[in-house]
Amino acid sequence: MGFIEELGAALPDGAVVTDLEVLEGYRHDRTTWLTPGHPVAAAFPTSTSEVVAAVKVAAAHRVPIVPRGAGSSLCGGSQAVDGALTLSLERMNRVLEIDRANQAVILEPGVMNADISLATAAHGLFYPPDPASKTFCSIGGNIATNAGGLCCVKYGVTRDYVQRLEVVLADGTVIETGHDTIKGVAGLDMTGLFVGSEGTLGIVTRIRLRLRPAPTGAATMVAFFPTLGAAGEAVSAITASGATLSLMEIMDRATVGVVDDYTGMGLDRNAAALLLVQSDSPAPLRNVEVERAATLCDAAGASYTAFTDDPEESEALLQARRLAGPALEQLGEAIWDDVGVPRSRVPELIGRIEQAAERRGADVYTFGHAGDGNMHPTLLSPRGDDDARQRALLAFDDIVEAALELGGTITGEHGVGQIKAAFLEREVGAANLALQRSIKRTLDPGGLFNPGRWL
Amino acid sequence: MGFIEELGAALPDGAVVTDLEVLEGYRHDRTTWLTPGHPVAAAFPTSTSEVVAAVKVAAAHRVPIVPRGAGSSLCGGSQAVDGALTLSLERMNRVLEIDRANQAVILEPGVMNADISLATAAHGLFYPPDPASKTFCSIGGNIATNAGGLCCVKYGVTRDYVQRLEVVLADGTVIETGHDTIKGVAGLDMTGLFVGSEGTLGIVTRIRLRLRPAPTGAATMVAFFPTLGAAGEAVSAITASGATLSLMEIMDRATVGVVDDYTGMGLDRNAAALLLVQSDSPAPLRNVEVERAATLCDAAGASYTAFTDDPEESEALLQARRLAGPALEQLGEAIWDDVGVPRSRVPELIGRIEQAAERRGADVYTFGHAGDGNMHPTLLSPRGDDDARQRALLAFDDIVEAALELGGTITGEHGVGQIKAAFLEREVGAANLALQRSIKRTLDPGGLFNPGRWL
Repeated sequence: MGFIEELGAALPDGAVVTDLEVLEGYRHDRTTWLTPGHPVAAAFPTSTSEVVAAVKVAAAHRVPIVPRGAGSSLCGGSQAVDGALTLSLERMNRVLEIDRANQAVILEPGVMNADISLATAAHGLFYPPDPASKTFCSIGGNIATNAGGLCCVKYGVTRDYVQRLEVVLADGTVIETGHDTIKGVAGLDMTGLFVGSEGTLGIVTRIRLRLRPAPTGAATMVAFFPTLGAAGEAVSAITASGATLSLMEIMDRATVGVVDDYTGMGLDRNAAALLLVQSDSPAPLRNVEVERAATLCDAAGASYTAFTDDPEESEALLQARRLAGPALEQLGEAIWDDVGVPRSRVPELIGRIEQAAERRGADVYTFGHAGDGNMHPTLLSPRGDDDARQRALLAFDDIVEAALELGGTITGEHGVGQIKAAFLEREVGAANLALQRSIKRTLDPGGLFNPGRWL
Repeated sequence: MGFIEELGAALPDGAVVTDLEVLEGYRHDRTTWLTPGHPVAAAFPTSTSEVVAAVKVAAAHRVPIVPRGAGSSLCGGSQAVDGALTLSLERMNRVLEIDRANQAVILEPGVMNADISLATAAHGLFYPPDPASKTFCSIGGNIATNAGGLCCVKYGVTRDYVQRLEVVLADGTVIETGHDTIKGVAGLDMTGLFVGSEGTLGIVTRIRLRLRPAPTGAATMVAFFPTLGAAGEAVSAITASGATLSLMEIMDRATVGVVDDYTGMGLDRNAAALLLVQSDSPAPLRNVEVERAATLCDAAGASYTAFTDDPEESEALLQARRLAGPALEQLGEAIWDDVGVPRSRVPELIGRIEQAAERRGADVYTFGHAGDGNMHPTLLSPRGDDDARQRALLAFDDIVEAALELGGTITGEHGVGQIKAAFLEREVGAANLALQRSIKRTLDPGGLFNPGRWL
């Protein structure tokens, strides 16, 4: 039997698709400026045993597999590969169990990030990591990239919440990693090995996540600064103050301008930077923390500060940050970067980003997570303007180089995928990368999973 | 040249010891009831390059290496092995750099846990994970076991603070893992693979740790309960309340009695359980949180509750927990267990522990971290009484079985070492363990590091 025929026989009716029009919808991810390959088929398993069946058939026919969550990757991590099977987890989207007493949830990989907190809200619990894409990214994809988000400055990243995984390996073996307990040190940390492995080591089919008691409210502050240096000073002073802030976001002048055009909020377009700070500590501490942050901003030279603990006003302030993406996408093709530096070097990084854009004649908008040094410089070019896109891509590479030179990382939360594979060795070193490749060969000797990415 | 001769030539004078009297001090760890092997020598490198030299000579002569921190292992993880080289990291004990702006410290593996916070206190920073052994356990050993401690219920475990490692591999290659940034997802999580690997994959020679702003004070509560069930209810209610407590410890009746004998504190020896709760949130929130915990204890049926925010009184209350170890060690040979269950099952676990002790005719004292379900049932036998020790060991095994049956883990923070190797497959499953072994073979094909433990 041929591959497609055997795969079809191994899975239920409708689980294997070869129709080109349908496949087209599974070729791309959000890395719109890359051209994806053409898959031989897409499979839509609904259970672990169906994933195992698909993996075994693909392995037998030496057809590589591209695991796919919701296709929201910004690094080309879920783009289709020529001749490969795209294995979509979108039909494995059930919340299986909420363990209220132990503040945990068991679910399948296709559940959308934002739906987890919706499902657990009735129990007073929430799932903290909150990528900006939370309404259209799946928890399986979050695990693949060890995704972060806005509230990570207080709550940590995906890895900090994954207690247990069920994983299908390249030979069809199913393993369970981790434990139902908060702490546990029995054996090597296999959970940590799969989280962030970007689909290169196995396919996650079931997940137990730790949850936290939902906060009771939030206080929010906005500040504008005449210089990037002043904003950086404020971030350092707020961090050193020991406040447990749940959000600390920065936007540069260019981003403020675009968001103001888009929203008409009346932001100060002359400011060099806008800083947003939120605390979800219990009242009245959250007000104390945010007012103190405002005082520290004033001391650092802010031109304007304002704070509120009204939920609607808080949400309105956050919109300035949340709408940066949509505002940019309206104007052209956005190439999203994702670099990190030690927190103290954020102002320096933003300066280097501006220099790179100027040198390359590119249009850059920088915003991101000031509290943890993870920035998203976004390069914009008019749709269809190949020359502008080329300049943007040169600036993109310069920015990644700058992050490395400042002691930082090529990716804080989006992943390596296709677009940063060439930089990986410079960050981790040749010996470390060789070790990673030997682990990849041990787990996936045939190179079945997510071929042609970085491992 | 023979092994010892070549090793001596590769290292500075005094770095290789074969004197039997000196070696005797490096045979044992704190697992006093196991008989250690006889090492061929002990080496005391003072730099990464000396560790590399020792590893290369040992590999060439096929002499296995037992890496050793401060020898405080409670699971036989650092006991000497017949014919092996004990490689002590005790002379690599320098704090190299404090990065105040980014709240991090770079140090060598031989630094004692408690000395980290002492070194960083002047900068207003502290290192949270606090094993009870913090004054005599090294950070290298903490990393080997992914050690926990009392404040982990709020602050997490060792893994959550390790940003970067320098590791010497079995072929003498030196790699760096991790990143200086708070977030970073470039490549596989090699840092997580080494943390908790108990010296089986490589030798950690330099570490970058994240720090946190030191708390400004603490409020503390003590409660006594007539039944274990009532104490369990209180723990559940306090956890569900969402308070960010920095400590939640439980002691059973037997432990309370021993501590009261030892200290004369006048504890309620008739109570079934004592619960200690602390909050180090900013004032006045810490008082609010601890008073609310007291109210929840009262509602759950506590016979007595008291709280304080006076530092000396707080410290006196904590002594009841801190002195459990010394009080027990005074009375005989202590076999420390370390099991974990989902938090909601702690009362059930304590019941099962009591049954095991009764069935085996053993003497058991249970205390531990109620906030995260990690318990330390400690079996006591008169020194030199082999029969009593045998009964204690049978109860020990029953307790590990009980933890597994309750959906828990065989080790929450002490490690697998020698004493729990036989249980590991039952917890992680055959396929997962086979995968771990294949990773061990990939990194250490000659079986050089920490032979005869669990990998």
